[in-house]
Amino acid sequence: MPASTDDTPQGIRRRNLARVLRAVAADGPLSRPGVAARIGLTRAGVAPLVDELLRAGLLVETGPAATGGRGRPGSELAVSDRGPAGIGAEIGVDHLAVCAVDLRGRIRARVAADAANRHSEPGPVLRQLSALLADVRTGIAAEGLRPAGLAVAVPGLVARGSTTVVHAPNLGWRDTDLAPALAPEYGGAGSVPLTVENEANLGALAELRLSGGTGRPAPPDFLHVSAEIGIGAAVVVDGQLLRGDRGFAGELGHVPVYPEGRPCDCGGRGCLEQYAGERAVLRAGGLSPERAAAGRPGPGAAVALLARRAADGDAATVRALHEAGTALGIALAGAVNLLDPRAVVLGGSLAGLAPWVLPSLERELTFRTAVAAQPAVSGDPLVRVSQLGADGPLFGAAHAALRAVLDDPPAFSPTHRSRC
Amino acid sequence: MPASTDDTPQGIRRRNLARVLRAVAADGPLSRPGVAARIGLTRAGVAPLVDELLRAGLLVETGPAATGGRGRPGSELAVSDRGPAGIGAEIGVDHLAVCAVDLRGRIRARVAADAANRHSEPGPVLRQLSALLADVRTGIAAEGLRPAGLAVAVPGLVARGSTTVVHAPNLGWRDTDLAPALAPEYGGAGSVPLTVENEANLGALAELRLSGGTGRPAPPDFLHVSAEIGIGAAVVVDGQLLRGDRGFAGELGHVPVYPEGRPCDCGGRGCLEQYAGERAVLRAGGLSPERAAAGRPGPGAAVALLARRAADGDAATVRALHEAGTALGIALAGAVNLLDPRAVVLGGSLAGLAPWVLPSLERELTFRTAVAAQPAVSGDPLVRVSQLGADGPLFGAAHAALRAVLDDPPAFSPTHRSRC
Repeated sequence: MPASTDDTPQGIRRRNLARVLRAVAADGPLSRPGVAARIGLTRAGVAPLVDELLRAGLLVETGPAATGGRGRPGSELAVSDRGPAGIGAEIGVDHLAVCAVDLRGRIRARVAADAANRHSEPGPVLRQLSALLADVRTGIAAEGLRPAGLAVAVPGLVARGSTTVVHAPNLGWRDTDLAPALAPEYGGAGSVPLTVENEANLGALAELRLSGGTGRPAPPDFLHVSAEIGIGAAVVVDGQLLRGDRGFAGELGHVPVYPEGRPCDCGGRGCLEQYAGERAVLRAGGLSPERAAAGRPGPGAAVALLARRAADGDAATVRALHEAGTALGIALAGAVNLLDPRAVVLGGSLAGLAPWVLPSLERELTFRTAVAAQPAVSGDPLVRVSQLGADGPLFGAAHAALRAVLDDPPAFSPTHRSRC
Repeated sequence: MPASTDDTPQGIRRRNLARVLRAVAADGPLSRPGVAARIGLTRAGVAPLVDELLRAGLLVETGPAATGGRGRPGSELAVSDRGPAGIGAEIGVDHLAVCAVDLRGRIRARVAADAANRHSEPGPVLRQLSALLADVRTGIAAEGLRPAGLAVAVPGLVARGSTTVVHAPNLGWRDTDLAPALAPEYGGAGSVPLTVENEANLGALAELRLSGGTGRPAPPDFLHVSAEIGIGAAVVVDGQLLRGDRGFAGELGHVPVYPEGRPCDCGGRGCLEQYAGERAVLRAGGLSPERAAAGRPGPGAAVALLARRAADGDAATVRALHEAGTALGIALAGAVNLLDPRAVVLGGSLAGLAPWVLPSLERELTFRTAVAAQPAVSGDPLVRVSQLGADGPLFGAAHAALRAVLDDPPAFSPTHRSRC
């Protein structure tokens, strides 16, 4: 969240509450003096803020802190593992998923279902999603958690600041507002706040906030590439998503790569998606997209097939992935020249295909950009492979839903909402 | 400047001083109640802030305000036309220029000189620039103005937050720090603050803050394309320049347009600059870049020649400009798909060649992007032609140098610096 410019006493108090909560969420358990030191306030200034967050159930005391010196021992503070939960949902072309994350960042519930959402009607898909949402809410309510917000990841363009999917070509949806179908539980007055967001954007938020188990969080300026059926990207600047004027930023799949090349469904020609999208790669490898998915429906079936054949040394598949990497490298060379990101993170199905895609991709970047041709000061490579893979958008959605609490704790105070 | 997060009384006071000064600079002359209403403070809260800015010589009283109602008449406030001046300088391939702008945004001094800076040694160029700077300082001192800062526009990459030109291919400069050559007057301790910035970035700031005489300021999210000898761009997001991790963002000239096309000086192949850069267009029009500049040296000679021949209906020139527009449209289609800007502003020499470049450029954008294919909600066209033209970077530099005063008035208080 950009820093608020509300300098009234109330505005400053809200900012300070958020600073305390974020400090404990990031570095807790912490003593009160530890919190004060981290956020640059006095111990006397921190005390009433901590009390308010304890009353709201956002912080808990975990017992006396081990103090190495003088003074009475204080109690350590941690964020609550009860209280608010962020709910993330994902509408994929071949699956649906819902998960819940608590303030400590732990996944507390997760359900998923295979689905055939290609060129679907929104109504039945959203009814199935509502059933999954109800399952997750029942599960977390038993553990003392209540939803702070719901964020839904979709493979398409979302109008900025709205809940409307303007165009999701692989779902076949146009100008579809998700709010009416999910109401009254979500998005209405007094109900759980609802946001709808492009899946690549939410995948990028996950990279920024999670370490992916083994890796490190992404740097504050990076480009996140998310390939599934289509190819999307998210541009992150100073830790914030660049959404674009209409909310349509990140359309990497329609960057022209070979301007006189193959016609694209978008009406253009030579778009990246025609060379590195899942269906294009399957066809280039001599496989039928329909038959690739028929044997093993569900998410990742086609990617798994490509990875298996490439690992077996199938020449057509290896060549198809090499050519996809070349096309990605050309498109990313343009993006890197324009944006100079610290890193390019390959997520989604690209993560699993990296061994065969990365060499030609990196060759193009080195050939075509000043940035990739010289070693980074940090020593880190420009291109990284996501450790979250296909789970990024779902986890990112749950974390985005929780973010509102961390940025403005009073908005989640029990007095603001009568029931969960 | 992003909002400061310093919530100490001093930090809040600095922010409020900046709010008052910016309000008067933007909308003055204003009465004290007018200022209070604009920035959401009480009249009692505004009074001491105004007094401090009057004492610092940043505001002046212009006489009693015409009040339509009750209450005693107040004096109107305006920003001073004495006091601080922003100094802008430009190092071009074929010229040098320096100007000074006062807080009212008026140009108070301007000098320029033709120069042959292609593949030059930095030393003599910077000595000539220093002489022009001395001329401007002498001139404005006589009018009661003193330099608040100097910003230098260069046609090359500048390391982020530094005064070092990493690479300016058309000047032939590499890793050149401008600060030692301009010291001790600029950039040293207690002297006038010095910033060095890519010319396209400063051109973008000019578009954002000036109306260009007849036009309107650019929207807060736009892409500024600056073509001179090379082609650069600036990405503006929420009114701020996107600089990139190393400060290298905006390298539109090296976005691949025809990946298997002409070799480029950068080591790549098929870069935009090879199809839409000034030398490429001259060659495609059957003209020698060296001979085009020989008859009439100085800035804009080649562009003027191209415009004259195109206006005369010379088929080779018209075809060359049409092809440059096509290449620009392909590169910009990638940028628009990635960034979704509200506007694309064509500046520099492109402004003068727009009648012959724009049709093919817009055709490619409409063909290749969802954004350009549909009419904007605002009714404004996506692509605009700059009204500032080749003067943008110089004016932008002067305004950038002045910006520090508007963002933090106490930094310019007379007690901070012993002499101008």
